[in-house]
Amino acid sequence: MSRTSIPAKLKIGFLGAGQLARMSALEAFRFGIQVAVFSDRTENEPVQFMTPFSTSGSFDSVDDMVEFAKECDVITLENEFISSEILHEVQEKSGTPIFPSPKSFALIENKLIEKQTFENAGIPVTPYKLVKSMNDLENFGNEHGWPYLLKSSKGGYDGYGNETVKDLQSATKAFEKLGGNTGRAILAEAFVPFTKELAVQVARNETGVAVYPCCETVQENHICVAVLSPAPIEEKFQQRAQELAVKAVEAIDGKGIYAFEFFLTEDGNILLNESAPRPHNSGHYTIEGCVTSQFENHVRSVLGLPLGSTKMNAPAIAMINLLGTHNRPAETDHIQKALETQNGHLHVYGKTQSKVGRKMAHYTLLGDDLDKTYQNAKKLTKGIEI
Amino acid sequence: MSRTSIPAKLKIGFLGAGQLARMSALEAFRFGIQVAVFSDRTENEPVQFMTPFSTSGSFDSVDDMVEFAKECDVITLENEFISSEILHEVQEKSGTPIFPSPKSFALIENKLIEKQTFENAGIPVTPYKLVKSMNDLENFGNEHGWPYLLKSSKGGYDGYGNETVKDLQSATKAFEKLGGNTGRAILAEAFVPFTKELAVQVARNETGVAVYPCCETVQENHICVAVLSPAPIEEKFQQRAQELAVKAVEAIDGKGIYAFEFFLTEDGNILLNESAPRPHNSGHYTIEGCVTSQFENHVRSVLGLPLGSTKMNAPAIAMINLLGTHNRPAETDHIQKALETQNGHLHVYGKTQSKVGRKMAHYTLLGDDLDKTYQNAKKLTKGIEI
Repeated sequence: MSRTSIPAKLKIGFLGAGQLARMSALEAFRFGIQVAVFSDRTENEPVQFMTPFSTSGSFDSVDDMVEFAKECDVITLENEFISSEILHEVQEKSGTPIFPSPKSFALIENKLIEKQTFENAGIPVTPYKLVKSMNDLENFGNEHGWPYLLKSSKGGYDGYGNETVKDLQSATKAFEKLGGNTGRAILAEAFVPFTKELAVQVARNETGVAVYPCCETVQENHICVAVLSPAPIEEKFQQRAQELAVKAVEAIDGKGIYAFEFFLTEDGNILLNESAPRPHNSGHYTIEGCVTSQFENHVRSVLGLPLGSTKMNAPAIAMINLLGTHNRPAETDHIQKALETQNGHLHVYGKTQSKVGRKMAHYTLLGDDLDKTYQNAKKLTKGIEI
Repeated sequence: MSRTSIPAKLKIGFLGAGQLARMSALEAFRFGIQVAVFSDRTENEPVQFMTPFSTSGSFDSVDDMVEFAKECDVITLENEFISSEILHEVQEKSGTPIFPSPKSFALIENKLIEKQTFENAGIPVTPYKLVKSMNDLENFGNEHGWPYLLKSSKGGYDGYGNETVKDLQSATKAFEKLGGNTGRAILAEAFVPFTKELAVQVARNETGVAVYPCCETVQENHICVAVLSPAPIEEKFQQRAQELAVKAVEAIDGKGIYAFEFFLTEDGNILLNESAPRPHNSGHYTIEGCVTSQFENHVRSVLGLPLGSTKMNAPAIAMINLLGTHNRPAETDHIQKALETQNGHLHVYGKTQSKVGRKMAHYTLLGDDLDKTYQNAKKLTKGIEI
């Protein structure tokens, strides 16, 4: 249902209270919309410092979440940790709509169903197979080459739940580690020789579709360390990734904001790798980088408001993830260079505890030349300690 | 004291919980900074939906505010309703610094001292005189012409506390109405034949000064209905206003964000009219219109962080104040055109109750041509009902 009005006390509820909910909440506030958060953590989370409507409970407890949902006009997600069945039940019992819908989410929460859904929609994906036995493990390696990837079909995140296997022995070990012997569905996925990792965010609701530029995600040890937009690749590849992203969101009848990650292969193919039914780290640069950020379009899309323009505000944008450098109470040090620089924008997530490698903050720099902007952003953030 | 670090749980306290604190809070959140608000209203105010740290009390009670201030790392203002003496006491007893400082505030809270301070700093102000008797009222009119303005030296806001007087009879009546007979200091101020009303925001702290472009404020019945930036006047006048604004903030040793309102007179002079030690309606356009908004520089300045660039993001910007059109529970209706338009940005303040003429929301449109952008912004917001 589309909406042309914002009533007083309209309230959006987030299942999850981390930085993605936080940055979405800032956009809800801009429209005078209230924000409620449901957290499953004991530690105080970023958004809990930003609203009087904060609830703690378990992501496995339908009752906890029903009670929370009843106080909200719409519910949305910031992670993939709640099963679609539970979301469905929460929606039914509370009467509060959830977007992305449990139905859409059901099509991507399980990596096997996700691959099949997108394949059926004509979207190229990396070669994969459900593996159930040592025979399967061996056959997949023989067919697609070693090493390859084993993935738990549920619950992967930033490289967790993934194992690289180089021979039958390591495959057997990883299969067991991922829970293959205890009934968990395990997917084998071929290693694709790629030249770039790409991402595209898409917002969609009954008023239309808004697709963001194709950006490059720079990964180190399976963690995204930087995002460059637009991706430094031929325009035809950018467009192809955007087309596939729109196709993908339509394939799952998505309402909300989605991110799709792709490989650009050595032979010039674009393969869908992963999808996320929520704002995504690859889209943080859109806060200052695009006319309407992924977070604003997140809020607009789940509320049925018209979507905003995704046009870029500068020719080149680099976003640097600022990962924890210490294990200590959070403190963002040596930020003066980053703050002094025109077109540089620092975001700190308000987490109270820093851990080495934890996503604590990010920095976005707008510029004219992508490589220069990236180098400059790295230089400006190099001394920051968190 | 300048700052190069943001520790966890750094907390900024706002005395006042309206839309100015709200928009400042959004920028504090961006840096992971916590926000506490002190409100003197019974109605729930915009910011109270955005923080778990909300206190109610009286702006006359030092004790109420000391207790609040003790929980914060720095205190700032969003209005001029608290006397500098009380602010001074709160600062002394809580040990928490207040910016703008009570000392700076003391120089502008009283219109007479304000005029004298700026005059002494070489800043042209409108002709004025402290009036104490019927004789004074008559003499001022004879010297500077009728009609002229009578102003209460304390507590004016958006035309309240001001009276236009056209002859001795109306002057005598207004003098009494403003409290002149009961000891309140009343200022007579000459009507200046102006061609434009201008405003300039300036942020200042120990790291430097950041001056915003000179904009035009469009007033109807003493209420600002629109802001156009840069002001459609010769560049030399823009620069002169900016220079005077910097001089003014230095004259009061201001730390924080300030707004200065000027008249451009028919004979090409620029006279300082009013000043505000806080973010100002004239600077709302800077949220999308400038690299760093007045609200972000508000937060940066009071915390001692380096100030951000005030460069404009587009050649022409129009901001329309969306005033209440009904007396009813707040509801912002017919917003689709405003939302659909690229480079249009809607802000709703989250007030629960709408009143005719009350500032409920605003809309900023970025463009290339100022007049076209202004006309377009008016068209896009014409149908909005609040």
